Amino acid sequence: MSILVVGSVAFDSVKTPFGEAKEVLGGSATYFSVASSYFSPVNLVAVVGEDFTGEHLSVFKEREIDISGLQYSPGKTFRWRGEYGFDLNEAHTLDTCLNVFENFNPQLPAKYSQCKYVFLGNIDPDLQSLVLDQVESPKLVACDTMNFWIASKLESLKKTLARVNLLIINEAEARELAGEPNLVKAAKKILSWGPDSIIIKRGEYGALLFSDSTVFSAPAYPLESVYDPTGAGDSFAGGVMGYLASTDDLSEANVRRAIIHGSLMASYNVEAFSLERLRNLSAADIDSRFQEFKALTHFEVSPTCFTTCK
Amino acid sequence: MSILVVGSVAFDSVKTPFGEAKEVLGGSATYFSVASSYFSPVNLVAVVGEDFTGEHLSVFKEREIDISGLQYSPGKTFRWRGEYGFDLNEAHTLDTCLNVFENFNPQLPAKYSQCKYVFLGNIDPDLQSLVLDQVESPKLVACDTMNFWIASKLESLKKTLARVNLLIINEAEARELAGEPNLVKAAKKILSWGPDSIIIKRGEYGALLFSDSTVFSAPAYPLESVYDPTGAGDSFAGGVMGYLASTDDLSEANVRRAIIHGSLMASYNVEAFSLERLRNLSAADIDSRFQEFKALTHFEVSPTCFTTCK
Repeated sequence: MSILVVGSVAFDSVKTPFGEAKEVLGGSATYFSVASSYFSPVNLVAVVGEDFTGEHLSVFKEREIDISGLQYSPGKTFRWRGEYGFDLNEAHTLDTCLNVFENFNPQLPAKYSQCKYVFLGNIDPDLQSLVLDQVESPKLVACDTMNFWIASKLESLKKTLARVNLLIINEAEARELAGEPNLVKAAKKILSWGPDSIIIKRGEYGALLFSDSTVFSAPAYPLESVYDPTGAGDSFAGGVMGYLASTDDLSEANVRRAIIHGSLMASYNVEAFSLERLRNLSAADIDSRFQEFKALTHFEVSPTCFTTCK
Repeated sequence: MSILVVGSVAFDSVKTPFGEAKEVLGGSATYFSVASSYFSPVNLVAVVGEDFTGEHLSVFKEREIDISGLQYSPGKTFRWRGEYGFDLNEAHTLDTCLNVFENFNPQLPAKYSQCKYVFLGNIDPDLQSLVLDQVESPKLVACDTMNFWIASKLESLKKTLARVNLLIINEAEARELAGEPNLVKAAKKILSWGPDSIIIKRGEYGALLFSDSTVFSAPAYPLESVYDPTGAGDSFAGGVMGYLASTDDLSEANVRRAIIHGSLMASYNVEAFSLERLRNLSAADIDSRFQEFKALTHFEVSPTCFTTCK
């Protein structure tokens, strides 16, 4: 099945303890679409400026991502500048220049309206709703958000959440959104606002899935070389949605597998700056890391014996 | 098989966002021995002062813990005072009064020397070595430590580590001990100093096992009601060692099950102040939460389909 993604395409300048990259391709829609493109056809809606070149486009083209929804506006492309300390879980934003993103008005090409799997990347919740208005009968709608929208547009965000099946959100933002430090209670509160499920992203600690009927804990892959966490959350969401769309199976067992695929796409993404690792994966890379995740978490049940062995 | 544990018995005063407890029974050897007593016979070595009463003793007696190695010294019992914010992963120490613990000289009753499973709780690494000198031929020696010993007695600690099979340590302390922010690299470095395995405790994020041949990621149980994290790390270690001693099986598959038992004992411990929950468990409690851990982490492997489904 096809995926529709709306979000940002940006130029990022990133500094980590392991190196630096200047004005490299990034943005939520970029990471999401490249990650999900390994599983399903992807249709992208975003906006870029006049400084967006054929070289940048080639990343989408090589992954066969449909960019007929990519708008060009007069002005410069969205820019983000940030750095990470040794605690790679948290980005410190140094500078954000919205540029053409400030007046982004997402309009879907007619052919996109049939997409069954929709991912509303981290943009203004009113725009997320506007995108949903243009999709005819989606099967699964997922969205992300961030502290900025939680603080400034909570009512709009709640309206979007009421139309969404799956919220994919960072741990700190889940707590902030619910106004509740306990994660289990926070998840329950957010579920009461509309979503059937919530996936809470915890950086190097993995992810938790909550729904009315289940909780699932997925690890992150312990990596010896992490160079740049930028885009990990969107690569994760891309893996989840890509796997779900490719299998078109929303059973709990398959959602769990999808989350592992999200975690593995994120694990590849952080191994290099920008899209350098994520755009160069093979089928064997994905399969082998999925098996590694299985080995990482597997344990066999055997009867406990404290009543007999003591 | 029998377990020998050496560590602290203390009176803790703890404040969390959910309540407060004053001068309640605590200490690393206390939490460890109560947790492990559900699986195996436990022999305790520790020191208390003249203020230690029969009421305190009853906690050990009801769990049938052998306290012939519990020394009484003139003076007061070790006291710790601390608090936790909404981030329950980190204790803020307000006050530490070593009292009789300052001159603790662990001497083992002769019958303890045959114990095959030994846990060296978080005490001076020279004392940890002194205890090991008194054990004849242990099968598995595990130890814990903390930032204070890493900073003040690193060479002594390394001598202890060279005699230890399993190090069980907090995440931040693993990084500090190795002088390395990346956890995979930190674990490898510490393994090169002697231990066959290292278990890194990550609070509400679970635990990681590293050895030369494997990595295992165990979750923590997502709890709606966490009242007091004090003793979670020692309850974890108690569950791990108790399960290993009761099964007397050091295969990798069994070590993984042991870690899940550690995680489940810690999950019960944090549900109440002091030992109030941990001392009142049933066999059914332990079995049912083990099954819940299985449900929490399980996913089935099925072929990825990105080559065919797209």
